[in-house]
Amino acid sequence: MSSVVTLVGNPREGSRTRTVAVAAAETLGRRIGYDDPPEVVDLAALAPHLPAPAASPQVEVALELVRGAGVLVVASPTYKATYTGLLKVFLDRLPGGALTGTVALPLLVMGDPRHALAVEIHLRPVLVELGALVPTPGLALAEAEIPALDARLGPWADRVAPQVTAALRETLGQGAQA
Amino acid sequence: MSSVVTLVGNPREGSRTRTVAVAAAETLGRRIGYDDPPEVVDLAALAPHLPAPAASPQVEVALELVRGAGVLVVASPTYKATYTGLLKVFLDRLPGGALTGTVALPLLVMGDPRHALAVEIHLRPVLVELGALVPTPGLALAEAEIPALDARLGPWADRVAPQVTAALRETLGQGAQA
Amino acid sequence: MSSVVTLVGNPREGSRTRTVAVAAAETLGRRIGYDDPPEVVDLAALAPHLPAPAASPQVEVALELVRGAGVLVVASPTYKATYTGLLKVFLDRLPGGALTGTVALPLLVMGDPRHALAVEIHLRPVLVELGALVPTPGLALAEAEIPALDARLGPWADRVAPQVTAALRETLGQGAQA
Amino acid sequence: MSSVVTLVGNPREGSRTRTVAVAAAETLGRRIGYDDPPEVVDLAALAPHLPAPAASPQVEVALELVRGAGVLVVASPTYKATYTGLLKVFLDRLPGGALTGTVALPLLVMGDPRHALAVEIHLRPVLVELGALVPTPGLALAEAEIPALDARLGPWADRVAPQVTAALRETLGQGAQA
Repeated sequence: MSSVVTLVGNPREGSRTRTVAVAAAETLGRRIGYDDPPEVVDLAALAPHLPAPAASPQVEVALELVRGAGVLVVASPTYKATYTGLLKVFLDRLPGGALTGTVALPLLVMGDPRHALAVEIHLRPVLVELGALVPTPGLALAEAEIPALDARLGPWADRVAPQVTAALRETLGQGAQA
Repeated sequence: MSSVVTLVGNPREGSRTRTVAVAAAETLGRRIGYDDPPEVVDLAALAPHLPAPAASPQVEVALELVRGAGVLVVASPTYKATYTGLLKVFLDRLPGGALTGTVALPLLVMGDPRHALAVEIHLRPVLVELGALVPTPGLALAEAEIPALDARLGPWADRVAPQVTAALRETLGQGAQA
Repeated sequence: MSSVVTLVGNPREGSRTRTVAVAAAETLGRRIGYDDPPEVVDLAALAPHLPAPAASPQVEVALELVRGAGVLVVASPTYKATYTGLLKVFLDRLPGGALTGTVALPLLVMGDPRHALAVEIHLRPVLVELGALVPTPGLALAEAEIPALDARLGPWADRVAPQVTAALRETLGQGAQA
Repeated sequence: MSSVVTLVGNPREGSRTRTVAVAAAETLGRRIGYDDPPEVVDLAALAPHLPAPAASPQVEVALELVRGAGVLVVASPTYKATYTGLLKVFLDRLPGGALTGTVALPLLVMGDPRHALAVEIHLRPVLVELGALVPTPGLALAEAEIPALDARLGPWADRVAPQVTAALRETLGQGAQA
């Protein structure tokens, strides 16, 4: 069965990116009929294993979880005005087309609001290149908005949930036919 | 009732961009249950009226047609490695959020395949900014592919039709509730 | 002899974009040894003549002025999160490589600071495609900064003047050899 | 004294990216008066040490070499239509403004020519954000061009050398005054 997964690309453990990503995935999940909490792939824990060429069981499990996601919230802080290298190192491990059939939602947590376009310009294209459906505009959330997170995520989830549901129904339908 | 419209941003009349855009809109239209030919807004005919501040009845009709589209194929040749100024002059006439409830598909006809990313990086964000749903990756078609247009557009339409249908059902549903 | 020109892509006459553009060109001009005021190509006045296919003497003069500029400040407000269609319509009139030997500086005047990256992502590539040297990062200035314009432009001019001078010396040197 | 350094962001050892990067740095170096071979920071060797939070002497040496470069050729293959995560993980280690006073040249080795714009859209902005001078357009080189590498790099070096020299003179001058 399909599921909601959030991929967190912040190298620090217990990051605010993780807080935002989990809250976004939960808020969206409830809107689209998932009562279970989202699964979380936090790359902070995997960082030591990621760029090494050797296989790592933890990394393999994480890759499988991400590939099998029905809905994938891909979250990163802005480092150098774009997503982190850690997130890209992980995504680079996925083969071409690995996210076909996954509905992905890009999310950036920005220190500086002037980096807002990065979510559409830099993060979204990587997910499209991997074959994901990315039906909604990316969410660029300023760190200053975190104290009032619910007030920001509620309207966002209201807005994107119908498109996610529609895209999901489509990919599930294709899976059933295949 | 909703409809399929194609907006052609080539300043020359009878352009190949128009040929490609109409073929794309027809091919997609058939896949999603529209038997009527798509309506065409060809900006070549409107160019003299566009940047002038004075109102023009033809421009107003064209703007209404684009705003009322259910599905909008927005096509441009690449000029200076991105979409034309003519297309943007027209889109600049639309007020903020004017394409809310429209499913838009960006399409670039390239002289040089090295400009392929422009459809995602430059053209798509303008449509998103106008409020359109842009659920599918943009189509960047090289001029060299035009002689075998059907072979290119058929698989493209197969791939995007389900997402367009899903997005359309959603926007129509919202309209019905409103 | 070479000169400082500013190209203003705002369709409204007497725009704040023009105010900012002229101030930027003057401030920079003084730093690099030009005492004459910059020449201004304000597209607001040319708008009615621009997209029409017919030749217009005013447009031809403006194109020549821009092509002959040593230093070109290209300024636009953000419309739909990028530069205006009016600016692009004008630039589309230039043949490929028309700005070879010109040092161009992109400048966006933003209503919303979240559009800041547009100056690097959208405006700069058009100028590079036209052959211009664009040695400095683009300037994205929020409308809210206009009341304290001098305080913003002074440090900017200090920062970019050396690079502009170096690039200019280079292009002039090439011209002298040619 | 300043030097020419090339940073290679391919995770595989002995990569073609390295071959191209070294050839580009050598060809450019000769044009701008450096007879010594360029120093090479090949991230393939550093990959196991990179994302781990712990300090690594090799990584520190590499970071110092990159920060101290006068001219820095930053090379990556295209992975998922942009530069590699490995390169970004390394760049993320640099503090803000770390490349101030460095003249950087972005270089992508593409499997698919349709990814050409990525060098300007994705790679260049990261270097600008780090404070580097990036006076020339990025070089996007298709793998198919590698067999005739010299024929491609010679004209490229002829074109960019004057701008690199000018920018370098400027940054060295600033250093001398400081």
